[in-house]
Amino acid sequence: MSQGQSNAVEFYFDFSSPYGYLAAQEIDDLAESHGRKVIWRPILLGPIFKQTGSKPLLDIPLKGEYTHRDIARTARRIGVPFRLPKPFPFSAVGASRIFYWLVDQDEEAACAYAKVLFREAFEEGRDISHPAVVSEVALRLGYMPTEVESALNNPELKERLRHEVDIAITRKVFGSPFFFVNGEPFWGNDRLVDVDLWLQRGGW
Amino acid sequence: MSQGQSNAVEFYFDFSSPYGYLAAQEIDDLAESHGRKVIWRPILLGPIFKQTGSKPLLDIPLKGEYTHRDIARTARRIGVPFRLPKPFPFSAVGASRIFYWLVDQDEEAACAYAKVLFREAFEEGRDISHPAVVSEVALRLGYMPTEVESALNNPELKERLRHEVDIAITRKVFGSPFFFVNGEPFWGNDRLVDVDLWLQRGGW
Repeated sequence: MSQGQSNAVEFYFDFSSPYGYLAAQEIDDLAESHGRKVIWRPILLGPIFKQTGSKPLLDIPLKGEYTHRDIARTARRIGVPFRLPKPFPFSAVGASRIFYWLVDQDEEAACAYAKVLFREAFEEGRDISHPAVVSEVALRLGYMPTEVESALNNPELKERLRHEVDIAITRKVFGSPFFFVNGEPFWGNDRLVDVDLWLQRGGW
Repeated sequence: MSQGQSNAVEFYFDFSSPYGYLAAQEIDDLAESHGRKVIWRPILLGPIFKQTGSKPLLDIPLKGEYTHRDIARTARRIGVPFRLPKPFPFSAVGASRIFYWLVDQDEEAACAYAKVLFREAFEEGRDISHPAVVSEVALRLGYMPTEVESALNNPELKERLRHEVDIAITRKVFGSPFFFVNGEPFWGNDRLVDVDLWLQRGGW
């Protein structure tokens, strides 16, 4: 971790998480209002849910139906569009590998890519599990499709993503979004209020 | 439902739910600030979790540990004491039956009883699944122990509680606390912010 990031807000998310998408719309501005940067860290909830015995929220009887309503309502409250892509849920493996490929070259570019990709999925309803969609987004940001394609299958990036998921599990991340503020864990889009307060007061 | 309650905030909770306890500290004042009353409705999450295949939060790997931390942190934020009673989880059957016994006599007295009982459990750490504790609280509020004891075993009150849980399931209540504002469902202590906004704006 480079100097100046040690007090950054850490933002773990799964690219296939609607609440992750919603948090992604707010976290940078929120952190910036306290003079903090955000470290974006895409992970995969699949391997984590195996450990916790959880299922995706939208698949749980009663809770799933409510969650659909709550996501749409939260999107309206914060004034962003929302659409559930088809298919859903989808795999975020490719999207996440490309993020880690980019982040080692240029962290800001990686975050810009993450934001665009989230919008493609949850505003446009596109299937970002598809390599062609990921490539197109990277192309729009100035990367070559051939580079992106080779990154998608790069064994080092596969390993890198696996490693990041392992770190998240070690840190007891079990959902998306998940934040750390000076080591303090916060789970869920609805905890942004607490993240804000924690940054303001330095804890309580 | 009596006149004047038709626009009341409905508050479903389980007496053994820590987040229910936290919401109980805030919901009356919140509703009152919008000129609304609150209808308190204790339920049992056990039969509901059977339908959703859920487990109590505190029993889930990783999530349980975080939840302990989050409950204590939320209690500190809103400035109320918190202690996890032993044993935990505990049965809220007796506590809930007495609530419904009281509510038909005097709704305000029933809410006062609910608040005291929640405090006995989550401030004093007492075992409110024990009939003697429930009786003692009712006694303090002016009821006779013999009346309370007979209410605890009254078949009509058993049926009444079962009926309230069935209604909750029909209304797709799947957790505690759970609120309805003009029919709009909100789940979780953290949705009090949304309940407040919804009351203010009449929806969005």
